Amino acid sequence: MSDLYQKSKLAFEAAKTLSLQSSLQKNAALIEMAKALKDSETEILKANEQDLLENPHLSTALKDRLLLTSKRLEAMASGLKEVADLEDPNGHEIYMTQRPNGLKIRKVRVPIGVIGIIYEARPNVTSDAAALCLKAGNAVILRGGSEAFHSNQAIVKVLKAGLARSLISPDAIQIIEDTDRTVVAEMIKLREYLDLIIPRGGAGLIKFVTENATVPVIETGVGNCHIYIDKDADLDMAKEIIINGKCQRPGVCNALEKALIHEDIAAEFLPLIAEELKSRGVLLKGCPYARQFLPELEVANQNDWSTEYLDLIMAIRVVESLDDALMHIAKYSSKHSEAIVTNNYFTAKRFEAEVDAAAVYVNASTRFTDGAEFGLGAEIGISTQKLHARGPMGLEELTTVKYVIEGEGQIR
Amino acid sequence: MSDLYQKSKLAFEAAKTLSLQSSLQKNAALIEMAKALKDSETEILKANEQDLLENPHLSTALKDRLLLTSKRLEAMASGLKEVADLEDPNGHEIYMTQRPNGLKIRKVRVPIGVIGIIYEARPNVTSDAAALCLKAGNAVILRGGSEAFHSNQAIVKVLKAGLARSLISPDAIQIIEDTDRTVVAEMIKLREYLDLIIPRGGAGLIKFVTENATVPVIETGVGNCHIYIDKDADLDMAKEIIINGKCQRPGVCNALEKALIHEDIAAEFLPLIAEELKSRGVLLKGCPYARQFLPELEVANQNDWSTEYLDLIMAIRVVESLDDALMHIAKYSSKHSEAIVTNNYFTAKRFEAEVDAAAVYVNASTRFTDGAEFGLGAEIGISTQKLHARGPMGLEELTTVKYVIEGEGQIR
Repeated sequence: MSDLYQKSKLAFEAAKTLSLQSSLQKNAALIEMAKALKDSETEILKANEQDLLENPHLSTALKDRLLLTSKRLEAMASGLKEVADLEDPNGHEIYMTQRPNGLKIRKVRVPIGVIGIIYEARPNVTSDAAALCLKAGNAVILRGGSEAFHSNQAIVKVLKAGLARSLISPDAIQIIEDTDRTVVAEMIKLREYLDLIIPRGGAGLIKFVTENATVPVIETGVGNCHIYIDKDADLDMAKEIIINGKCQRPGVCNALEKALIHEDIAAEFLPLIAEELKSRGVLLKGCPYARQFLPELEVANQNDWSTEYLDLIMAIRVVESLDDALMHIAKYSSKHSEAIVTNNYFTAKRFEAEVDAAAVYVNASTRFTDGAEFGLGAEIGISTQKLHARGPMGLEELTTVKYVIEGEGQIR
Repeated sequence: MSDLYQKSKLAFEAAKTLSLQSSLQKNAALIEMAKALKDSETEILKANEQDLLENPHLSTALKDRLLLTSKRLEAMASGLKEVADLEDPNGHEIYMTQRPNGLKIRKVRVPIGVIGIIYEARPNVTSDAAALCLKAGNAVILRGGSEAFHSNQAIVKVLKAGLARSLISPDAIQIIEDTDRTVVAEMIKLREYLDLIIPRGGAGLIKFVTENATVPVIETGVGNCHIYIDKDADLDMAKEIIINGKCQRPGVCNALEKALIHEDIAAEFLPLIAEELKSRGVLLKGCPYARQFLPELEVANQNDWSTEYLDLIMAIRVVESLDDALMHIAKYSSKHSEAIVTNNYFTAKRFEAEVDAAAVYVNASTRFTDGAEFGLGAEIGISTQKLHARGPMGLEELTTVKYVIEGEGQIR
């Protein structure tokens, strides 16, 4: 028997009292959690070592994502304190009206309840997600990747010890121990106790969750991001933005994956950008038209256009017009971040209006799609869906609303 | 082969251009739709007559819901004009910031895309839903109840004729002709073309859709609404609010279904309210404790507490405290509308804070949970879920947001 049901029930009960706690109490709890993390460094690093020992098959990149160090634990603790410093959205009045019959109607922010987070390798997500959910007044049920099993369990044990020194119940943070994959399938159907599921991870996880969940889901993170270099672009600017978007951190969701180049500038721009990218180790693929300009490009096939590489790979298409670029983006975009480089006002405005994505950029790098870069504070993920939240999700997106109506006996 | 796919594809294409239309163009289209409805009265009433002929088995109440008259068509046409008068939420800036690096970040309202509405008997929903979706910039795919088949088809044909005289494509409104129930199961999984499903109808439909959809859903309308009459209540006020909540329109989702009475006032209040309700034809049921005060009450069983009667029936429970009332509501509430009658400030504030529902009332009738009564204009339904929309859903809830970021070459 899985621990899912019992822990979900505990979280459900904890959520009721947590939703009534003041910001001061939640902030004090976050500070205790941060202290506990630092005080238990040895214990957590030991658990992390065991994870690394048990997973020798992991690639160097994945090992690095899994690895905890004293410095990384310090950063996690600072993250908890930063969440304590964020403004609590709960209680904010979004709408207030007094009706002709005297009824006072207020629409106020309140916590959602119980949030399930399903995530993959990085153990820092464990404390980040727990902190954001808690500050927004929600209990959280965590389900981390099996590679980080010992690290995650150790971190949660320590966070709960921190909570035990506060007025918040340690039951508000739960982590599923059952490593069987079927537990995810059960968790995403547990409407009785869960109000929301946020999957954080690769396209496979997101697809499985959205297709099988009966609990409401917020999709995050898959970013097949495009940039369109218009015929009226500043080509130096275009070059810098492409290099930044592709090379600064290729493994993240707001990295550039595709470049669409207007044919009028292809002869000049393609060799230029190809040289810059190749010198940075980027493997370039191209459509047949692009390969007319640069025959050395690998062939980009149908599959390439819909793939989020998350690697030093980029596919290039030469297009005949803005319309062609818009059609390509509409067809292949994951609706995360899309960019244009142009000096033309009307071209820029058409791109802004017609591209359907969480973030649409004119003359800037897609790498800015991030809660902190947007000035929203820490984020729990980047929503690529249209309901409830779109783009970087901060504390506000972890709340809902309710109407409170006060009267003196009004009837209809 | 069902017409679902082809019509969904048409709606998907129409949504792209509709999302770019100005409010003026959408308003002109709504006025043309209203004109068309009035001009085609004979055609629509004839179709409605056929529906009534083909469904002789319907109850009088359901026949009345299905019936169209010249006056009701006039009201539908007025409804279209009222939607034209509502402010268009699209383009509104919700957040605007200029970052230290000079990036200008705007969060703006935009249409959702394609919305599927699955509904039951009332044919007026056909024009109301189409109008609200269109004004919010969305294409709509309607799937009405089989009893109203001919009426709904006739209404949509007429609305499309109205659109044909405007700048909006008639493809923006689609109605599924396939009456097979399996088409609903297919529609709610059509993620390729649909962005949102709103089921409007009984608990069975809502449950089927939420449990089987892969397209995001907004649940609407099931209202197992409670009122708690506190020991510190004004009993005359309590009486008026209960009578209004139960009797003014018992078949709607914001009608009262359950009354929880504090034991201290039960001996005085129960006979009083029972007499008033019985004289209005309400069948009363009670818990064992309530039946100690009024032995003539029918027995309320476990099933009663979770049932939305939508009829002149009410179950009464006598409770020992506010805590008991809150626990009962937490267990059985459908999170629609919940009310308290009390003169005690702290009791009122605890009820407001602790009851988890779309609308929480103090000293007023639950019957006010309605877009127009809240001052929000026409509504497409009342959301009883916590994500995206909660309570009466107007135009704003039929939109999403996107971030538009303008720069001058910024990179990270």
